[in-house]
Amino acid sequence: MSVEAMENIDVDELSRLADEKKYRQLKNLLLEMNSVDIAAFIEDLDSERTVVVFRMLPKDLAAEVFAELSSEKDMHIINSITDRELSDIMEDLYVDDAVDMLEELPAIVVRRVLKNTKTDTRKLINQFLNYPENSAGSIMTAEYIGLKESMTVEESFAYIRKHGIDSETIYTCYVTDAERRLNGVVTVKDLLMNPYETTVSEIMDTHVLKVTTTQDQEEVVDMMSRYDLLSLPVVDSENRLVGIVTVDDAMEVMEEEATEDFEKMAAMLPSEKPYLKTSVLQLAKNRIPWLLILMLSSTISGAILVYYENAFAALPLLVSFVPMLMDTGGNCGGQSSTTIIRGMAVGDIEPSDILQVVWKEIRVGIVAGAVLAIVNFVRLMIQYPGNTMICVTVVISIFITVIVAKTIGCTLPIGAKVLRLDPAIMASPMITTIVDAVSLMVYFGMASRLLELAA
Amino acid sequence: MSVEAMENIDVDELSRLADEKKYRQLKNLLLEMNSVDIAAFIEDLDSERTVVVFRMLPKDLAAEVFAELSSEKDMHIINSITDRELSDIMEDLYVDDAVDMLEELPAIVVRRVLKNTKTDTRKLINQFLNYPENSAGSIMTAEYIGLKESMTVEESFAYIRKHGIDSETIYTCYVTDAERRLNGVVTVKDLLMNPYETTVSEIMDTHVLKVTTTQDQEEVVDMMSRYDLLSLPVVDSENRLVGIVTVDDAMEVMEEEATEDFEKMAAMLPSEKPYLKTSVLQLAKNRIPWLLILMLSSTISGAILVYYENAFAALPLLVSFVPMLMDTGGNCGGQSSTTIIRGMAVGDIEPSDILQVVWKEIRVGIVAGAVLAIVNFVRLMIQYPGNTMICVTVVISIFITVIVAKTIGCTLPIGAKVLRLDPAIMASPMITTIVDAVSLMVYFGMASRLLELAA
Repeated sequence: MSVEAMENIDVDELSRLADEKKYRQLKNLLLEMNSVDIAAFIEDLDSERTVVVFRMLPKDLAAEVFAELSSEKDMHIINSITDRELSDIMEDLYVDDAVDMLEELPAIVVRRVLKNTKTDTRKLINQFLNYPENSAGSIMTAEYIGLKESMTVEESFAYIRKHGIDSETIYTCYVTDAERRLNGVVTVKDLLMNPYETTVSEIMDTHVLKVTTTQDQEEVVDMMSRYDLLSLPVVDSENRLVGIVTVDDAMEVMEEEATEDFEKMAAMLPSEKPYLKTSVLQLAKNRIPWLLILMLSSTISGAILVYYENAFAALPLLVSFVPMLMDTGGNCGGQSSTTIIRGMAVGDIEPSDILQVVWKEIRVGIVAGAVLAIVNFVRLMIQYPGNTMICVTVVISIFITVIVAKTIGCTLPIGAKVLRLDPAIMASPMITTIVDAVSLMVYFGMASRLLELAA
Repeated sequence: MSVEAMENIDVDELSRLADEKKYRQLKNLLLEMNSVDIAAFIEDLDSERTVVVFRMLPKDLAAEVFAELSSEKDMHIINSITDRELSDIMEDLYVDDAVDMLEELPAIVVRRVLKNTKTDTRKLINQFLNYPENSAGSIMTAEYIGLKESMTVEESFAYIRKHGIDSETIYTCYVTDAERRLNGVVTVKDLLMNPYETTVSEIMDTHVLKVTTTQDQEEVVDMMSRYDLLSLPVVDSENRLVGIVTVDDAMEVMEEEATEDFEKMAAMLPSEKPYLKTSVLQLAKNRIPWLLILMLSSTISGAILVYYENAFAALPLLVSFVPMLMDTGGNCGGQSSTTIIRGMAVGDIEPSDILQVVWKEIRVGIVAGAVLAIVNFVRLMIQYPGNTMICVTVVISIFITVIVAKTIGCTLPIGAKVLRLDPAIMASPMITTIVDAVSLMVYFGMASRLLELAA
């Protein structure tokens, strides 16, 4: 990605200038770039040059770049600059970026940072640090434009001109009363489309979409994406405006939540950091719990096989179809559960749709099961001519397994949701383990009956 | 979702008013609501009331609601209104919404719609319909604010006031020359922060981030999320501005792309429509191809079992550990492949990181394999006391299987990417099938050696 994104920027040229200590030329080039690309460039510098290059940046830009850097780089910079420089950066950082950074740093560094932060900002940061993880409060920012009902359009513009530079977004302004209660919302578009003497109260929209600090970040994102919002106000329990969530943070949360679902659905605990920065032990720690649970659960399938020991002792060929049955069952169940879990995550499917979903999956199972059974029958009749009854056993087992797998695969995630568990745990790995046991019972039950084998 | 989102709106009250034909009261309530909620309400009305309620809406709002409705409802409304009404809606729809709708409608309806669309708009729609699916061109809109370099801030505001009402976003304005070539970008924030007499050329940013019409929509989203953009300009091959992509559409694409990855990674072809609106046959068609491929591939594992027939004929207990081995291998491989596929999708991992990734996965495999082996050893020694060599065989097989599964699971998705295939096909189902065969070979190879059984 970085290659495409930085297509207009010659990273080699920048590195060369840094190597040759042509700092003035380097600075001129950097000033032409945006903070994201500068941060990407600094990220690859060695520790000494990191600080040299960072110090070249003007105050405002430095804070922006600082917010984009990894916590490792941030810590290195903090440890290398003076208290005064640190204090300047902290005043220019948006509160949400400051909080994100502090959550990653060791306590001793946090203490020095907070010591060099002005009292008001420090209070705000401490308040933000206390919101529960993944809540609206934890992703909001405090820098918004607040207007009063009595202001005119002209006064509003004057206010925006004065305070806009410190706000994350100026395009949606929030109207509050003397107690900071949120009464309305007005966009810069509304302001622009109305005469200067109009008052805010005349043009503001009083039907404000909002969330409370403790609501889950997923609800915030759903709401912003559903109503195409650029920002969403966050209020406390008494409807006082405490912050806003901007659309760029919402997009980040959306990506994080999808990643989390991918991880959970592959039987892993969600990880906090990007893969390459996560330690081997942490990765192992995230993966082992479910592996253990699923490994121990699959002994049930083993027990079923032991129970039918005589069947395959008499007819060893039977065993050779076990992997095909188990894999097909697992894949069918995985398809259904993935479809339903994702459908619920994006709001297409509600638990109340359960009957419709099950009926649909059963019919899909009948169609898919029939096709797989026919293809398999043809193959088996060619591969094992004369063993018609074995073929029939395998084919009927496949057909039933597909239908059962689809039914289990769609029922369990909805059941989890109803029980207020995370549906994502009922994804492919768990479904596979359950379906394995069922498909083996169907198969050997069928074999005992059709082939007249003693169980 | 709809319940939370519509918390301030009494749907029952609306339905009651519609039932009792109290249309004036209903209209007053509707006018207080936003287009998303009105569309959600209309979606649940029967066909007769749909048209009655839709006709209540003022022209502008009608077009907005129309853009939010499902294609079924749109078609019903189109078939029930006059040519004149249709023409009005088409003029008020944004081009991207019109195109999205037309792509879903049957040809005969499309013809009537285009017949009632003004020539300019029709040309634009036809042009947009021709961009390749999933390209930047297919998700962009034509309604943006275009300024000239020579304009002053004051003239710019006058222009925005006049044309802003028809633009999807006014907050980022694009500066073009006489040939419509894109030369710069200026935000309303920039305009507000500068004196009225400043010219656009003085404050515009000439480092414009942009995409071409044929670039993939995923690149568009990556770029917007990386640089926190509210809109991104789309140019043709000669750098002429043809449209913009807005952040709300980018969020939608992000959600769609994640859903597509979930589907592919569960061995399904991506589906076009929400689950509940997809037919049983279509669902079966999306699911059967991979099921067939994987079913036939898993006969390889079956063949391996047949090859070791004598081993488990002599020692039937051996078979009972097959499900555990296969499931554990599949789960381990699935964890790794999911992590790597998602990591590549969000840009955390590049194919050039392959050595680092493989080395990390091997180490994770050693840790996870050791833990699973130890737990299993303890369990087996309790469950089957005296069968020490069988336990050792199972435990060593588990350990090796975990490491091999992790290695295969991380290598194949990267390999697919290098070969310009979609890494998502190398997800859990495919990996499981491959790892199954490997784990059975390890297990029975080990058993033949350690237990001195004839293969």
